[in-house]
Amino acid sequence: MNVTIINIGDELLIGQVVNTNASTMARMLTEAGMEVGKTVVVGDSRDDIWQAVDAAMHSSDTVLVTGGLGPTKDDITKKLLCEYFGSELVESEVALENVKRLFAVRGFELTPVNRAQALVPKCCEVLNNDVGTAPCMWFEREGKVLVSLPGVPHEMEWLMANRVIPKLQETFSMETIINKNILTQGIGESFLSDLIEPWELALPECIRLAYLPVAGMTKLRLTARGTQAASLQKAIDSAVEDLYKIAGQYIVGEDCETLAELVHKTLTERGLTLATAESCTGGTIASQLTAQAGASAYFRGGVVAYSNEVKVCALGVQHSTLVAHGAVSEETAREMAEGVRNRLGADLAIATTGIAGPDGGTPEKPVGTVWIAVADATHTEAQLLSFPGRRRQQNIDRTVNQAFSMLIHMICQKH
Amino acid sequence: MNVTIINIGDELLIGQVVNTNASTMARMLTEAGMEVGKTVVVGDSRDDIWQAVDAAMHSSDTVLVTGGLGPTKDDITKKLLCEYFGSELVESEVALENVKRLFAVRGFELTPVNRAQALVPKCCEVLNNDVGTAPCMWFEREGKVLVSLPGVPHEMEWLMANRVIPKLQETFSMETIINKNILTQGIGESFLSDLIEPWELALPECIRLAYLPVAGMTKLRLTARGTQAASLQKAIDSAVEDLYKIAGQYIVGEDCETLAELVHKTLTERGLTLATAESCTGGTIASQLTAQAGASAYFRGGVVAYSNEVKVCALGVQHSTLVAHGAVSEETAREMAEGVRNRLGADLAIATTGIAGPDGGTPEKPVGTVWIAVADATHTEAQLLSFPGRRRQQNIDRTVNQAFSMLIHMICQKH
Repeated sequence: MNVTIINIGDELLIGQVVNTNASTMARMLTEAGMEVGKTVVVGDSRDDIWQAVDAAMHSSDTVLVTGGLGPTKDDITKKLLCEYFGSELVESEVALENVKRLFAVRGFELTPVNRAQALVPKCCEVLNNDVGTAPCMWFEREGKVLVSLPGVPHEMEWLMANRVIPKLQETFSMETIINKNILTQGIGESFLSDLIEPWELALPECIRLAYLPVAGMTKLRLTARGTQAASLQKAIDSAVEDLYKIAGQYIVGEDCETLAELVHKTLTERGLTLATAESCTGGTIASQLTAQAGASAYFRGGVVAYSNEVKVCALGVQHSTLVAHGAVSEETAREMAEGVRNRLGADLAIATTGIAGPDGGTPEKPVGTVWIAVADATHTEAQLLSFPGRRRQQNIDRTVNQAFSMLIHMICQKH
Repeated sequence: MNVTIINIGDELLIGQVVNTNASTMARMLTEAGMEVGKTVVVGDSRDDIWQAVDAAMHSSDTVLVTGGLGPTKDDITKKLLCEYFGSELVESEVALENVKRLFAVRGFELTPVNRAQALVPKCCEVLNNDVGTAPCMWFEREGKVLVSLPGVPHEMEWLMANRVIPKLQETFSMETIINKNILTQGIGESFLSDLIEPWELALPECIRLAYLPVAGMTKLRLTARGTQAASLQKAIDSAVEDLYKIAGQYIVGEDCETLAELVHKTLTERGLTLATAESCTGGTIASQLTAQAGASAYFRGGVVAYSNEVKVCALGVQHSTLVAHGAVSEETAREMAEGVRNRLGADLAIATTGIAGPDGGTPEKPVGTVWIAVADATHTEAQLLSFPGRRRQQNIDRTVNQAFSMLIHMICQKH
């Protein structure tokens, strides 16, 4: 069963908004065993939408369309689909009840603009949208399905999980797909490729491999497809076992998308607590951890020590250390990690201090110079990173990943 | 001049990676006066790539392709384009020198896999990639252009800015496009739409309006297109002036993409400093501010006070306050803001405390209950938010935006 995703919106074509809907939908469909063949973005233009819908209805079994359903004037999807399927707009009782219900909950008065959201093409089935006023519309023609969803991410996500995917699973019978992630760190993509080439060439037909380098880490994704779940799982398990034999020293974890997720899982499972002291990463480590539900079980808190005064007063870094070695130094990183661990009463701590760029470097400490320290009750480890580039976000992201990797290493060795 | 963007990669179709390349490229092209008509994502499959390239070469003037150029085995773009343009692979001296140079800088030995990156179709022009080993290839046929770029975001971005856009501007002559952003807060999209409908209907032909709701804020984007830059600018200015007359009380700023950017700009311009005390937002406020170069000029630092102990020991919140009112309360939010402002010596402070979800609520304080406080030397303001949903990231993002909005409001009124 092959799916095409069409996301509609001028904002996506001028780059003001990152199209997270495509990746969210693709992930959900993949997990449900469906294959996304293509995703397309077009603007709020009648001809472009028509063409994209028509092409997708010819080339795939299912077409999912997001966007263009809001009450405002740049939204035209509904009228277009009505015309495409040769239908007429009628007021849907189900959709109207839903709009009324949501307005009552919010204590707002129903305006004509909002009431118009209950108009839908007569030929479609309305899938009730519990979390928003825009209706979700299911069309069928010649064994193919088109579903129109709102573009608001959380409404789309709720509808996909609760309405669209269950109904697609009823309608089509599906191939089994198993994905397996292996996270590697400390080796570049091309060196890893050379190292594991014999293994890769020996992979069975049913497994496909992809390299996904992100901020200094390379994720390997193995995808097995077929009809027999058990034999696919066996093939994956055996491939992973072989991979450990040749590249085990670079593997930091499995079954996570990110190192933040791996840290979250590891700390939660082992019942260890963490504190952070961030200078150049500016709160990103704390933010990535606390974005995950349940972080309060292990995350005590953190200090974003952007100025030297904060390093001294909130973390207990010695003034003399800053004078003798500077804020970006091994000594400062160590004192930050030890200070925050003690003050916040955590088992483990991470500290970062560096020059993320694009400016602020010196000949001795150029942009990209970063010290990371990780500490437990008995030991502190520090590492110097020297990133070649001046790109701020990249240097921050790589520092965060390296810090997570050092922490996981310390935990796995000692705790 | 109409552009189609094609991003290649299985990782995009299974939703493991968000396609930020499409939005970055679209933004850069739009700013350079080019129009993106469509973006397409296909997997690492020969037939799908061929079909997407062929369709795009027929429907648009320029096709930009990312991905599939790395040294690993799932990358097939180069060979396919060679065949598509009826050419043969030859070793490019320019590309080989570049690979050698980058390996020398990094102190690595050149492997055969890396040397193969210098192979390019004979018919293309190599645009030198200063920041990576994958070559950027420019093809021309019948007045149309296809450019193949690496999918690594920072390499793509560097090549777009330094090679591709300048060469496209030389090759084609372009229409002028002016975009203008207006940030509104405190009014829902449909109510805003009702309020400004007469204004919207009276907009001149050359201006198009889009609503972009993000995490509790609605961004209005006006886009003017035409040949005369001066008259387009005048039309935009006049429309914005009229908009202030009917919706001025909801407008928090202009010309920024995000409220974090607006805060950054406002604090920098006014020479004010800021400290943050974050509980439920877990470092996201600090992270969004410090992601912007120059944040050290105003950002003193912050405390991520995830546990009660940290609220007491690092921020000076009274133990009695926590006992009497709880961590999620107006009193605690106020003491957090005042505490961090005093301890970190900042002009202004933001504090957040709440229950982001999906779990952790009580009947009195359900999930979605959040207190925000902003403080300056003489005054502290606090606000209660009650989000209806249990979605953690959404509640965090909305809290961050509301906090930024409160801060901007305080600055504009008093500083």
